[in-house]
Order: sequence, then structure tokens, then C-alpha cells
Amino acid sequence: MYVTIVHVAVKPDNIEDFMQACRANHLESVKEPGNLRFDVLQLADDPSRFVLYEAYKTKDDAAAHKDTAHYQKWRETVADWMADPRQGITYNGLYHDGE
Amino acid sequence: MYVTIVHVAVKPDNIEDFMQACRANHLESVKEPGNLRFDVLQLADDPSRFVLYEAYKTKDDAAAHKDTAHYQKWRETVADWMADPRQGITYNGLYHDGE
Repeated sequence: MYVTIVHVAVKPDNIEDFMQACRANHLESVKEPGNLRFDVLQLADDPSRFVLYEAYKTKDDAAAHKDTAHYQKWRETVADWMADPRQGITYNGLYHDGE
Repeated sequence: MYVTIVHVAVKPDNIEDFMQACRANHLESVKEPGNLRFDVLQLADDPSRFVLYEAYKTKDDAAAHKDTAHYQKWRETVADWMADPRQGITYNGLYHDGE
């Protein structure tokens, strides 16, 4: 399992818009053949901070996500709403349910 | 969905032991009634750094995890293997598959 945890800080006026754009991205991303999780999280202590938890079977599956229309639309839509550049950190999932 | 992301730095000599202890904890935790995910991740760029991604239906389900024998065994087993105190950050999951 290949996991990317993306940290995003959103401008306060764009929080609701950001959540809607992420929901649209989530709904399409979970349909991708190699996707295992595409969770959108909001920090309990600060509603302007989000985490995208993106788990794919392989690194190639994660790379393929960036070629999808829904990812590219999300990226363009949210670009001006971020308070800082987003940061993605990659991890190897040691196992997941059923493996 | 109530999510805790736990960051752990492990002493280099205890990496393999830590992975085994986490696997045992993972295998029992995913059986808990309120558990949705219990992923154990290793940082791609530094094998001594781990993330536990623990998602439960509710905050109460997450709290109940700390009362389980497998969690308490894990906590005691790994205590001396950590290079620094572990840090947990809590998030609200905005939706997950099927919701």
C-alpha cells in the first residue's frame, strides 16, 4: 500500500468551497481501480486545516491519480484557496485489512 | 468518522520489533466494532518513522480502543523503543466510502 498524506491550510473565507471541491474529488477518486482510501479530514482544533489521506495499491496507481480529470479539476479549483503551498509526505503501508 | 494520526519515531535498533508489535495491534484493532481503519505506515524516506492511522466511527469508539488488552499490551511493549514521545493529532473525517 502506497500512501500520501497531504497537509493543506485553507484561507478562512474558502473553507466551505474547499470542502465541496474535496468531496467531488473524493467521490471520483474512490472509483479509481488502484484506490484503497481517499479520506478528507479536518483538524479538530482548527477548521482551516485539512489532511487528504490517499492510499493506493501501488506507486503507479497513485501516479495515475494525477492524470485524472477530477484531480486536475480539484487542483485548479483550490489553487487560490490555499493559505500556504500544500505538503505531501509519502509512506509505505505495511499491510492493510485482508493482507 | 473520528481519526487520530499518531506519529512515532523509533530507535534504530528496535524498528523490526516495533513493526511486529504494531502488526499484532493492527490485527486485533481492525476487529473492534467501531473501527474503520487501522493502518500502520512507514515513512518512505526514513524507516525509523511511522504513522498509525486510526479511524473510528465515533469519538467513543476511539476511546474504547484504549481500554482493550491489545492496545495496552502494545503501549507497554513499545514504550522503551520510542526515540521521542509519540504525538497524536485528531481530525474529523468529513465522509468516508459509502456515506
